[in-house]
Amino acid sequence: MFKKILYPTDFSDVAAKALDYIKHLKEAGSQEVVILHVINQRTIDGLMRHAVSDSHIDTWLKTAKTVAQESLAEMGKELEALGFSVKTIIKTGFPWSEILNLEEQEAPSIIVIGSHGRSNIGEIFLGSVSERVIRRCKRPVMVIKREPAV
Amino acid sequence: MFKKILYPTDFSDVAAKALDYIKHLKEAGSQEVVILHVINQRTIDGLMRHAVSDSHIDTWLKTAKTVAQESLAEMGKELEALGFSVKTIIKTGFPWSEILNLEEQEAPSIIVIGSHGRSNIGEIFLGSVSERVIRRCKRPVMVIKREPAV
Repeated sequence: MFKKILYPTDFSDVAAKALDYIKHLKEAGSQEVVILHVINQRTIDGLMRHAVSDSHIDTWLKTAKTVAQESLAEMGKELEALGFSVKTIIKTGFPWSEILNLEEQEAPSIIVIGSHGRSNIGEIFLGSVSERVIRRCKRPVMVIKREPAV
Repeated sequence: MFKKILYPTDFSDVAAKALDYIKHLKEAGSQEVVILHVINQRTIDGLMRHAVSDSHIDTWLKTAKTVAQESLAEMGKELEALGFSVKTIIKTGFPWSEILNLEEQEAPSIIVIGSHGRSNIGEIFLGSVSERVIRRCKRPVMVIKREPAV
C-alpha cells in the first residue's frame, strides 16, 4: 500500500518535513521513492517578462538544474542508506501539472507532499500546488502541513 | 509520526478502504486509533423539515446510534486484534466540524480519511467533508480516494 512513493519537493522546509514521513513509511512496506523537482515555468516566464536575455535565462536554468540534481542526489543517498530504491526526476513546467503527469506515468502507491499553508484566524489554507494535486490526483495522498509541531 | 491516528468513518466503501491503510501503518509505529462517526445534523434537519414527529426522530436517532456503536465496536475489535489500542466516539453534528473539533481535543499524529470524489472528464473532485477537513486541519492528513484500484 505504501510500496512506491511519489515525492514532489520544492526544497522547502515543509517538503523536508514530508521526507521525514516517507522515511518512517519504510517499516510499513515502502520500497521505492520517486523524487520529483519541478523548475517552475512561472519563474522562467517572469525572467522573460523582465527582459532578461535568453543567454542569461539559459545560464540560470542550467544552474537551477545542477543545484536541483545535487540536492536530489543527496536525498537519494539518504533514502538509499535506509534501504529504499530511488529515482530522481527534474522537470520544467507547472509543478501541479508535472506532479499529476508523473502520477500517471509512475503509478505510485501514494503521493507524499508538503503543503505551504498559511494560518489565518483559525484557518490554515493549503498551498496552491498541493491543493490542485489533492483535488485532481487519483491515488492516495498524504499532506504534511507547515504547522503544528506534532 | 503515525502513533495516534484519527479515523473518521461514515461506513462507506471509501472509509473502509482508508481503514486498510491504517492497518498497514501499524508497522510504521501506529499504536492508537480514534474512530469517529458523526451522525449528520443535516439528516436530522431534513427529517424535521419533512415534519417527521419528534418521537420518530428520537427513535431514528437512537437506532442510528446503536447501529453506529455496533459497527465501531466491530472495527475496534479488528484493530485491537492487530495490536492497536482503540477509542470509539459517536457525535451528532456536521461531520467536518466534529472531525476538526476532535483533532483539537485528541491531537492525533495524523488524520486518515476517505474521500467521496467523483470523476468527471479527467478530474476527480473531493467530497465536501474531506475537502473541508484537508483545508482546515493542522496535522498531516492522508486522503484515500475512491479510485483507482491501485
